Amino acid sequence: MIKKLCIIGVGLIGGSLALALRRAGYCEEIIGAGRNAERLQIAQDLGVIDSFNTDMAAAVSDADMVFVAVPMGAMAAVFKAIDAHLKPTAIVTDGGSAKVRVIEDAKEFLKRCYSQFVPAHPIAGTEQSGVEAAFAELYQDRRVIITPSDESAQASAAVIAMWQAAGAEVESMPAAEHDEILAGTSHLPHLLAYGLVNCLFESNNSESYFRYAAGGFRDFTRIASSDPVMWRDICLANKTALLTSLSRYQSELDRIKDALNKEDADQLLCYFQSAKMSRDKFNF
Amino acid sequence: MIKKLCIIGVGLIGGSLALALRRAGYCEEIIGAGRNAERLQIAQDLGVIDSFNTDMAAAVSDADMVFVAVPMGAMAAVFKAIDAHLKPTAIVTDGGSAKVRVIEDAKEFLKRCYSQFVPAHPIAGTEQSGVEAAFAELYQDRRVIITPSDESAQASAAVIAMWQAAGAEVESMPAAEHDEILAGTSHLPHLLAYGLVNCLFESNNSESYFRYAAGGFRDFTRIASSDPVMWRDICLANKTALLTSLSRYQSELDRIKDALNKEDADQLLCYFQSAKMSRDKFNF
Repeated sequence: MIKKLCIIGVGLIGGSLALALRRAGYCEEIIGAGRNAERLQIAQDLGVIDSFNTDMAAAVSDADMVFVAVPMGAMAAVFKAIDAHLKPTAIVTDGGSAKVRVIEDAKEFLKRCYSQFVPAHPIAGTEQSGVEAAFAELYQDRRVIITPSDESAQASAAVIAMWQAAGAEVESMPAAEHDEILAGTSHLPHLLAYGLVNCLFESNNSESYFRYAAGGFRDFTRIASSDPVMWRDICLANKTALLTSLSRYQSELDRIKDALNKEDADQLLCYFQSAKMSRDKFNF
Repeated sequence: MIKKLCIIGVGLIGGSLALALRRAGYCEEIIGAGRNAERLQIAQDLGVIDSFNTDMAAAVSDADMVFVAVPMGAMAAVFKAIDAHLKPTAIVTDGGSAKVRVIEDAKEFLKRCYSQFVPAHPIAGTEQSGVEAAFAELYQDRRVIITPSDESAQASAAVIAMWQAAGAEVESMPAAEHDEILAGTSHLPHLLAYGLVNCLFESNNSESYFRYAAGGFRDFTRIASSDPVMWRDICLANKTALLTSLSRYQSELDRIKDALNKEDADQLLCYFQSAKMSRDKFNF
């Protein structure tokens, strides 16, 4: 149970956690914080939060748990703004998609309560954003990865319990490993989808491209509707792992191009078969 | 109305057309043809076709309309096998995903009835294959592109009417334009998805990659479960347009990589915003 939860950034991610914890009866009180009073008012009107405060320092002052769900690029500023105002026992966690960078930011700006900071990443989301898109089931049976430091073992237990109350399965791993995996399964695919949409739209045929697109294209490019600010921040925050991943992918494309250039039917077939086998094994 | 329809290749595409036309009461009789008697028996047992014959020449001999729905690489052999056995009035059409190559094959091997050949491409499908995956609604409100020659205007009317009876909207365009558009919206995305799955699966972390993948990855890679033989053939058949498309895409990735390397936040944001705007405009 959490007495008072403060959610900084009440959008899809923060709002869905609030709704899930409300449904589970896991919080006595939820306060929202952020820069935009109008957006926070909507969150309150929707029953996602009980109250809000655009002054982050005030909002966290008597919170037992603080969930920071802002774009990666805003994490450092949030940590800096709240550090001096946290209760000594307060636990701080986040929902950022790249953990090494968040940990660096926390080390630098969460000076007072770094040992109670638990980096976390709920592997869930949709291409939608904003509190209107939030729903209580977003985390049901989804994974949340935490990447805690040795000092934050006790705080981790509270964060794990919170995510479990929201329906998620929590696992722990080193931050660098998290960043490498997510670069491949999430950050790179977003880049690829953004790239494809621009590639087609910048051509002369752009109207036709979309007119004659089918379901495969729709699914493939859905993530290109994701929030640009959030993804700019994620890409910059996970730059190193993402560049490695992108380079590996470019080599794959070179392999395919080479096989196609040589009209090497066997190599193409083998390549596609191996991908299909891997994808089918992965039983979604 | 079609008196006797012969479908060569009774899989997802051929089988779904049969089911749609049956539902519409548009065919008196549907005969299936192909190499595999066991698969054709399943199609008959499922009520997709009335009868079948593994001898293609015999199967087409009194058909009024012949729909060739085999992988692109098998088109030429089918045309060759049936040409001498078609009724003089028979209309032949296909469902191949690359039209320039099919037309070349038809010119070479459909000698007797080339003027009654109407190249067509139903822009529909799923990552499934086989007649078990066929369903009558596959073409409902989907587009079918025909790329007829000047000689085949009369035959075109019959093919258009058939696809309309199956629920589709039919449009006509030059074959080369079709191939360029489909390279971008369908063939390239398939290559990209196959490439991503292999890229991740060949790494040391392959188990983790799939364990921690979320909905975006699932949607993005769904098409990597598509039939490898079919896609090998499509890639080879549309090689030129696809290579052009792939090169353009590689330049896009270089642009993204460059912006990321320089940590050019504005350029990344602009790039993602422009993709999101294009994708959102395309109201799926």
